[in-house]
Amino acid sequence: MALVVQKYGGSSVENATRVKRVAERIVQTRKAGNDVVVVVSAMGDTTDELLDLAGEVSPQPDPRELDMLVTAGERISMSVLAMAINDLGYQARSFTGSQAGMLTTAAHGDARIVDVTPGRVQAALDEGYIVIVAGFQGVSPDTKDITSLGRGGSDVTAVAMAAALKADVCEIYSDVDGVYTADPRIVPDAQKLDDISFEEMLELAASGAKILYLRSVEYARRYGIPLHVRSSYSNKPGTIVSGNLEDIPMEQALISGVAHDRSEAKLTVTRVPDHPGAAAQIFEIIAEAEIDIDMIVQNVSTAGNGHTDISFTLPKTDGDKAVKQLRKKQEKVGFEKVIYDENVGKLSLVGAGMRSHPGVTATFCQALADADVNIEIISTSEIRISVVCRDSDLNTAVKAVHDAFELGGEEEAVVYAGTGR
Amino acid sequence: MALVVQKYGGSSVENATRVKRVAERIVQTRKAGNDVVVVVSAMGDTTDELLDLAGEVSPQPDPRELDMLVTAGERISMSVLAMAINDLGYQARSFTGSQAGMLTTAAHGDARIVDVTPGRVQAALDEGYIVIVAGFQGVSPDTKDITSLGRGGSDVTAVAMAAALKADVCEIYSDVDGVYTADPRIVPDAQKLDDISFEEMLELAASGAKILYLRSVEYARRYGIPLHVRSSYSNKPGTIVSGNLEDIPMEQALISGVAHDRSEAKLTVTRVPDHPGAAAQIFEIIAEAEIDIDMIVQNVSTAGNGHTDISFTLPKTDGDKAVKQLRKKQEKVGFEKVIYDENVGKLSLVGAGMRSHPGVTATFCQALADADVNIEIISTSEIRISVVCRDSDLNTAVKAVHDAFELGGEEEAVVYAGTGR
Repeated sequence: MALVVQKYGGSSVENATRVKRVAERIVQTRKAGNDVVVVVSAMGDTTDELLDLAGEVSPQPDPRELDMLVTAGERISMSVLAMAINDLGYQARSFTGSQAGMLTTAAHGDARIVDVTPGRVQAALDEGYIVIVAGFQGVSPDTKDITSLGRGGSDVTAVAMAAALKADVCEIYSDVDGVYTADPRIVPDAQKLDDISFEEMLELAASGAKILYLRSVEYARRYGIPLHVRSSYSNKPGTIVSGNLEDIPMEQALISGVAHDRSEAKLTVTRVPDHPGAAAQIFEIIAEAEIDIDMIVQNVSTAGNGHTDISFTLPKTDGDKAVKQLRKKQEKVGFEKVIYDENVGKLSLVGAGMRSHPGVTATFCQALADADVNIEIISTSEIRISVVCRDSDLNTAVKAVHDAFELGGEEEAVVYAGTGR
Repeated sequence: MALVVQKYGGSSVENATRVKRVAERIVQTRKAGNDVVVVVSAMGDTTDELLDLAGEVSPQPDPRELDMLVTAGERISMSVLAMAINDLGYQARSFTGSQAGMLTTAAHGDARIVDVTPGRVQAALDEGYIVIVAGFQGVSPDTKDITSLGRGGSDVTAVAMAAALKADVCEIYSDVDGVYTADPRIVPDAQKLDDISFEEMLELAASGAKILYLRSVEYARRYGIPLHVRSSYSNKPGTIVSGNLEDIPMEQALISGVAHDRSEAKLTVTRVPDHPGAAAQIFEIIAEAEIDIDMIVQNVSTAGNGHTDISFTLPKTDGDKAVKQLRKKQEKVGFEKVIYDENVGKLSLVGAGMRSHPGVTATFCQALADADVNIEIISTSEIRISVVCRDSDLNTAVKAVHDAFELGGEEEAVVYAGTGR
């Protein structure tokens, strides 16, 4: 008998009909001889509706109370799902994050898991129950207050619960049937991957693939929990995320896929004095504003004369703050001006195969050149190449790279969509 | 500095605007120098909406899961109310029933409070917080499961919290501004009472007055917590419920009011064999079906010949069940038939003054006779007279009795409405 942890996103349980369908799938897993623990997100738009309500009573709601409020969402979905399973003649019990032993930091709205003590979950499993756990939430042992885990919190809950219970697999259900070689909305012949290593998945997630959140992949890798990314609308196998890069034989190493990201902007600081410490000052200003930057490039200034231009990418949502903070210190640092550009896109090619095939970068750059796409910034890691280009060139670039590495299949892909939180 | 417990019903917090108004009232109480603990019901129709959702996934939802679901309602209202108070510059913290230490039996949907351990509430008060507690809910220490308290549960929560914290007063807010001498929708000159004893309030609540639930009045009397019934729409004082009957000087004793009730039906079992045990058999059948009966009368049968008719009142909601169970045992008991009559109403006159004024019953019956109202059943207690009459005569009867005891005032009453749960 295996222990299976399943996670269902908000769209999979957005109304009573869908809840009943999910209940049937859970019962099937049970009938197949497995112990089942289910982690569930809030139904459909519930979380947004609760946030709207909060906004109506307070422009800046108290963070502790906001967590108390939004965690009502998963309480509703988990109890309704348990009812639906009970109604099919199987015994189910729901537990809040607190009851399930999800212990977190006290950082309301973005808490991190510090420990999982699933005593009640294990006891219910031992008594033969199907267990439903609220995703996205926990309790701080220091303050005893209810917390929420922030973006991707339900995936992280599922992975953490799987790790604590030593589950055999953690299945992540959404309306997407797996991890694709590229976004099928841009590349119609993108193929579903049967499996991918944790490292490659991490690079894809960090490069803009929205199918899994970085946090949950990191957590799964740390505890060696295989993830099975699949669709709640079909019974087809999805994509298995497991194994370490070192375990992949060099000969089999391949390119996994192309990710793209439109959430970043490019910021250029011109005519920075070309002496040690000037660049450091700029990145200190950005770090103090708690902005994560991504790709960095430093050029010799077109104006020359002992000055350089420094460019980097950052989340568009932090753009205003970055520009404001830099301009405040302009005189002190001594640069000429700040150029902020939102019309950029990022493309990343990820694959364990890059380690052993030195020609990958050349093929990659040639493909973009042939497609007339100008590279503005380029950076690489052991298993990833990323470039920044014009936003308007991004789709062309994704298709060109996907074709150049022959990632396409014969079948048309199932249309890709977002996942629940 | 006094400690005030306030309870707000669902209509008082049905939307963001009303929540903000309630928050202002709470802050005023705080500004007046009081410690404040607030018990709140679910917003508006939230509970009904959650019950509807449960009904969509299961015709008979699992009781444990149903409690998990409905308790999300108060979680939402309490956190939103805390946010609104925080937004006014005062510190508030919300606690679920479980966090506030409301320990109950494990009877899902109708749990009883067994103990209150308000350690976290007291600690928050000591730190200067306004404390918001979810009404209607608790936790069973035996099963560790979340429970709900059934009808009137939020009032009971408030009274129990007031008793455990040794509060000076428990204020029950709704859209009604106090306890009236009669339902102002029937008797336009009904007057608001300034105060009333626990016993009289108990008799009124048991006789159909909907302003307070019997359970909460019983609880308040047991712990000697004065209740202040008042409106969340005005600052006028309402009705104080306090003190024992023995403490009311005989000379001051008065008639408090007239209550009426349309929720009961009359059931008559005809030609019951007139020997010891036949009546007992009938009431045993009813007790086994867990039906609470109220007024009982046993007549000599019009048919005579060693048989009697037995009539009693019972909740209309239990009518079908009672008839079915009785007919099943008809042969065994040997009665003739069951007559079920829903077209009845009950009127009760309540007042400590009855103890010392033997003429009350005579005045009461004369008033009904003058109004041409036929009495079908009559029963009395030390401070109450109740009669059953035709439903169509009930309003006339209420007015006649109210007039006969000169309970009316000069002012037109504020319109009476239902309270939250």
